[in-house]
Amino acid sequence: MSEIRPPLRHADFSFSARQGNELVLGGLPLSRLAARIGQTPFYAYERAALDRRIQELRAALPGEVALHYAIKANPMPALVDHLARQLDGFDLASGGELAVALDSGMAPEHISFAGPGKTRTELEQAVAAGVLLNVESLREVRLLADISQARGWTARVAVRINPDFELKSSGMKMGGGAKPFGVDAEQVPDLLREIARQGLAFEGFHLYAGSQNLRADAIVEAQQKSFELCLRLAEAAPSPVRTFNLGGGFGIPYFPGEQRLALEPIGENLAALAGRCAREQPEARLELELGRYLVGEAGIYVCRILDRKISRGQVFLVTDGGLHHHLAASGNFGQVIRKNYPVAIGTKMGSAEREIASVVGPLCTPLDLLAERMELAAAEPGDLVVVFQSGAYGRTASPADFLSHPHVREVLV
Amino acid sequence: MSEIRPPLRHADFSFSARQGNELVLGGLPLSRLAARIGQTPFYAYERAALDRRIQELRAALPGEVALHYAIKANPMPALVDHLARQLDGFDLASGGELAVALDSGMAPEHISFAGPGKTRTELEQAVAAGVLLNVESLREVRLLADISQARGWTARVAVRINPDFELKSSGMKMGGGAKPFGVDAEQVPDLLREIARQGLAFEGFHLYAGSQNLRADAIVEAQQKSFELCLRLAEAAPSPVRTFNLGGGFGIPYFPGEQRLALEPIGENLAALAGRCAREQPEARLELELGRYLVGEAGIYVCRILDRKISRGQVFLVTDGGLHHHLAASGNFGQVIRKNYPVAIGTKMGSAEREIASVVGPLCTPLDLLAERMELAAAEPGDLVVVFQSGAYGRTASPADFLSHPHVREVLV
Repeated sequence: MSEIRPPLRHADFSFSARQGNELVLGGLPLSRLAARIGQTPFYAYERAALDRRIQELRAALPGEVALHYAIKANPMPALVDHLARQLDGFDLASGGELAVALDSGMAPEHISFAGPGKTRTELEQAVAAGVLLNVESLREVRLLADISQARGWTARVAVRINPDFELKSSGMKMGGGAKPFGVDAEQVPDLLREIARQGLAFEGFHLYAGSQNLRADAIVEAQQKSFELCLRLAEAAPSPVRTFNLGGGFGIPYFPGEQRLALEPIGENLAALAGRCAREQPEARLELELGRYLVGEAGIYVCRILDRKISRGQVFLVTDGGLHHHLAASGNFGQVIRKNYPVAIGTKMGSAEREIASVVGPLCTPLDLLAERMELAAAEPGDLVVVFQSGAYGRTASPADFLSHPHVREVLV
Repeated sequence: MSEIRPPLRHADFSFSARQGNELVLGGLPLSRLAARIGQTPFYAYERAALDRRIQELRAALPGEVALHYAIKANPMPALVDHLARQLDGFDLASGGELAVALDSGMAPEHISFAGPGKTRTELEQAVAAGVLLNVESLREVRLLADISQARGWTARVAVRINPDFELKSSGMKMGGGAKPFGVDAEQVPDLLREIARQGLAFEGFHLYAGSQNLRADAIVEAQQKSFELCLRLAEAAPSPVRTFNLGGGFGIPYFPGEQRLALEPIGENLAALAGRCAREQPEARLELELGRYLVGEAGIYVCRILDRKISRGQVFLVTDGGLHHHLAASGNFGQVIRKNYPVAIGTKMGSAEREIASVVGPLCTPLDLLAERMELAAAEPGDLVVVFQSGAYGRTASPADFLSHPHVREVLV
């Protein structure tokens, strides 16, 4: 087998199960699933697809590395509950996510909370719950000391580090240079002294270099550098390190020509890091914090074609769904150049009759575009449009009230 | 006075009232307003500013031209109620907006509903309410005939035209070429025949060439062409035309160097069009449909500084507000190049101590940026950050549930 994987085509993103011409999800053909839900549009996330992804990760990565889920990628409670039974911990970005995490039954010991602007209320909630706080500034340390003293509860803290390097070729860079996230690496020793002085329970370090990266070599390099930096800073720690959270950054392919991330080199590198960790910081555990990579490929967005219009020779499929439910698929969430997400007609999967069509939503704006002049099965009003790779940053990353249309539903099947 | 207006600086966007160092809105200094609301972040819209804008428009435009508000720009009920008492009609983009419009007391005769993907339920709601439907396809005409026949209610219809020209230099083009909006001009006569055959109550035409335009000459040209096209298509109308909705497109300045739209040439041109309309289509009324222009400058977004961080020499003001409340100000809603909205420290308006700072939100993403390296008054935790020009496409155009933070409040003062 060649080591070079072929570039993905849009067709490869599909869930593979079919019944007749219909996509099948969770054992139900799409039109029946829509009837069961009682409305379109909806997001559907598949348990089997989530489980497959977790199994792939467990097989490729060393057992010593803990797998955490970053709830921000998709906070649907049923999905979070499902993941709570299979993963080693959760990472939070708000007090709202804390509630979902605790409701799932995940033990507070395995929950951590990061964010550059935590409110005093959120810090109090987190200390009351007993979760680990990734502190990002001197102010947070002082507030936590204040809360601990006033309430008599111990604040568990790790330090989020703004590293002195960047994660190459990432969708988003979240470390290196001047950043609002974490504490500059060179300021960490001072902060550690303050943590000790204030009597907070120090547990480790957190580092998040970037996200949505499809290059294993870049991730390997970032994890190596992150680990080295943690080891170096651990020399200034007031107590033995118990956790090194090396962040995530594992990307998923969205567009034609993109390659799937190769897990093998990442697994090999993490095994080496885990070996060093066991020797040099025997009480510490390595953690990965994955969001999009765990859930992104396990979900689809589905809307119904309301109208088929031909304007000056071009076909427009007008649907009941659009950017108010799935902003990223419209190309308007931080993307500089709009590219089509993988889209298909979920009720005509096998159809040989194909055409070039644009899929638009019901909003009075040219931004409301789910597919621009894409080759699709020829479709009619009533057919269901599917947007693949929609399990992460879908509903919650979209302006639900824009133009006051009905909200989207979510199901786990 | 010179006819060339000086380019706006960010400082010009401010509401002018002050008390000490504080911005005053609706008679209250900002910190007291925040206390009255009981939380930050919030949007505040000012009645006096809305009224001033309407007075300017009434003074500049001929009395024969009806002024409608496009609710999509800001559907806050109290604001819509306030505008219902001063404007001539409302334009809707969804069944959700229909409810807000009717609750305000605006008469259904003066409400119209446009949108490329209206559902059967929305069409039934609109016919039941007795509002005017801007039909955008043959399917809609057939559905309306079906509803009228089944229920015995008359469907009032206008035809939304996709013109054969574009509005030059618009923020967004919504007409011309192949578009999902409206019916291609050349297909309109056929649709008019179908409307007559189905016995629907034809009332006129709707045309929306584009939005957010700061050049009066471009708007004048579009209105002239729109009116000519309407007159030409009126020859094929089954009954006398009662409304010509010429759309909107009036822009507001957001960025340094942008010029305010000159209303005088638009008023002169509309007076000429109104004269021709009275002669050639004596039963018809000209309507303008304005959204952003009516409300955009009358609102601010306010958030509180939680932390002040220095990372590698740069100042970051970390606030409790961000892109989850105000996506457009973060530069992530359809903008190709990010530019700073007008931002100020609302509790230090007169301060001579200034610095270069970035204003960020609490979200774990580099997209969560309200001001990038901008000159601002030197500020501390507790100070209030104000984003001006935030009355339109703010809350509803933002992903409120992104990272599960508290929702923003809205007040009319």
